[in-house]
Amino acid sequence: MQSFIPPQRTLMGPGPSDVSPQVLQALSRPTIGHLDPLFIKMMDEVKELLKYAFQTKNEFTIAVSAPGSAGMETCFVNLVERGEKVLVCRNGVFGERMRQNVERCGGIAIVIDDEWGTPVSLAKVEEALIKDPEINVIAFVHAETSTGVLSDAKSISELAQKYNCLTIVDAVTSLGGVPLFVDEWLLDAVYSGSQKCLSCIPGLSPVTFSNKAVEKMKSRKEPVQSWFLDQSLVLGYWSGEGKRSYHHTAPVNSLYALHESLLMLKNEGLENAWKRHDHFHQELKRGLESLGVSFIVDEKYRLPQLNAVYIPDGTDDALVRKVLLEEYNLEIGAGLGDLAGKAWRIGLMGYAARKENVSLCLKALSDVL
Amino acid sequence: MQSFIPPQRTLMGPGPSDVSPQVLQALSRPTIGHLDPLFIKMMDEVKELLKYAFQTKNEFTIAVSAPGSAGMETCFVNLVERGEKVLVCRNGVFGERMRQNVERCGGIAIVIDDEWGTPVSLAKVEEALIKDPEINVIAFVHAETSTGVLSDAKSISELAQKYNCLTIVDAVTSLGGVPLFVDEWLLDAVYSGSQKCLSCIPGLSPVTFSNKAVEKMKSRKEPVQSWFLDQSLVLGYWSGEGKRSYHHTAPVNSLYALHESLLMLKNEGLENAWKRHDHFHQELKRGLESLGVSFIVDEKYRLPQLNAVYIPDGTDDALVRKVLLEEYNLEIGAGLGDLAGKAWRIGLMGYAARKENVSLCLKALSDVL
Repeated sequence: MQSFIPPQRTLMGPGPSDVSPQVLQALSRPTIGHLDPLFIKMMDEVKELLKYAFQTKNEFTIAVSAPGSAGMETCFVNLVERGEKVLVCRNGVFGERMRQNVERCGGIAIVIDDEWGTPVSLAKVEEALIKDPEINVIAFVHAETSTGVLSDAKSISELAQKYNCLTIVDAVTSLGGVPLFVDEWLLDAVYSGSQKCLSCIPGLSPVTFSNKAVEKMKSRKEPVQSWFLDQSLVLGYWSGEGKRSYHHTAPVNSLYALHESLLMLKNEGLENAWKRHDHFHQELKRGLESLGVSFIVDEKYRLPQLNAVYIPDGTDDALVRKVLLEEYNLEIGAGLGDLAGKAWRIGLMGYAARKENVSLCLKALSDVL
Repeated sequence: MQSFIPPQRTLMGPGPSDVSPQVLQALSRPTIGHLDPLFIKMMDEVKELLKYAFQTKNEFTIAVSAPGSAGMETCFVNLVERGEKVLVCRNGVFGERMRQNVERCGGIAIVIDDEWGTPVSLAKVEEALIKDPEINVIAFVHAETSTGVLSDAKSISELAQKYNCLTIVDAVTSLGGVPLFVDEWLLDAVYSGSQKCLSCIPGLSPVTFSNKAVEKMKSRKEPVQSWFLDQSLVLGYWSGEGKRSYHHTAPVNSLYALHESLLMLKNEGLENAWKRHDHFHQELKRGLESLGVSFIVDEKYRLPQLNAVYIPDGTDDALVRKVLLEEYNLEIGAGLGDLAGKAWRIGLMGYAARKENVSLCLKALSDVL
């Protein structure tokens, strides 16, 4: 067995997306202790940078030491108690995963379905809330990675306010790629992933909790079922003046990488990052359309960072992706769930949203199709 | 805010320990997709290498995508169902953490206590098993990171066989540092951490499950309470001929690092690694004793890789550690739990178990004390 030397791929799938070389460099800096004062200071900077990315003043804004799925679970296990009713808006794979999370922590999931590729229907949300006044949490996916659709987080949150519910929001693919205003939209628990529009390596999940969410955690009747994800314990490590208490050993190097990627985002500016994603999406869109490839999602709700398109008739899905990977070192994503075999998901996330990627992708597809 | 440039520390605490430069280099290689065929192949190699490190043929041998605490939780949530009785052997911080894990998954923890710094008492284990025949899992820590004591995993497992129990074993600090034979000792569920004697970065938790443990998982009455840690789902990603199903996005770069560190261990040979830890432990021990520093743990049960010593009378604990860190770039560990303020924990783990580290530590301590 030999050392593993990966090829240099261009990552235009649903994530992980291209990681900036600057971030990879930060990742490989010498490991220091997870309680080293210099590391604690860096963690404080990560918190500040995450607040900027989430557009929030929430003090409880940290990175969970595990991938986005663990960030999702963090929100559910801390905020949902046994027997509580949660409205789950399901319009793709990750809404379904939310339902499973609710049930695994003993909650009751009230599910509303929207067709894959369409956004969450506000009318259905309101109807469900009227019908069942016991619902006190609404869970939805802001940017569905399985379909490439954007839902209207602001309006769903307005309904949450009206019916006195907390919101749990999947922003795994949205953070850094499209506008997301946690404070302005009054979102309560929002989780994301490092490996999408933040241009960072996979393995960390940024989360933020509003004061209302923190209050709810504090008034729990039973302890959180997960020791590892219990935020009342985790917070002792991520905050407090001076002294921090040991909970688990933080993924030190991955946090170096997150720090660097968030700094890059801050230096570019969120609005510029959103514009960049949109700009290259438009370029990709024009190219795809000229190849006769059509989008699954209506233009109005389309995510610039995740382009879900129909696989052209008569095309061998697996073969095309294999050729792209082996001959062009280009990864695009397969369809997931209901869209398996029917769709490709072409990501333009973070560092991957740049001219050379769009050009490579269009040329490679036009060669292969 | 600037890029974070950490100093080059010498890490001789309880972990993270020094990471080999070779591992840091592997870590920063270009990210590829978590479903890329080349990555899947590398994961298969990680499994093989982990089997070697654990000395097992268990097919179910993988790395959990999160730190050791999540590895611990993985074992408990998958193997303990509501109402089940688990014998927890508590002789330090991590035994107590096991108890909390049992209770959080609805199990009943029967706790036996041994004094901090002493190993788990076999007599107490057998007494508890005789007293309560409903116990069907024994949980214990092989190498207690909080006290530096080694317990007799082989003999505890013999009792487990005799009384028809499964074993859950914390090998976070033992793997790679002292003999551990998962198959020969018939251990059932064993978890470890990447950041100790494997010389890897923190953030991953190797785990292995015996067939008996897998059978128990398969015959569960209720689903595992954690979606993220549900091994029946995780296994769809880590194994299977050819096609792997997406569960969560693996921490790709961290797994490069683990692959490299395990390859280094394989190339050195487990026995040589154990000898190296012991050799430098002896050297450190002689030096510490000549400085009048005494060990907490009786020589017979002492871990070579974690030297817990009494802080000499009249010494300012925090000040000494601060001077070591700031002037010598040397981290040693503070006492944890009952030993806070009373002990130091000097790690000699993995890449940190080498001559220059011992020399630096002894010289720095002799200067400062």
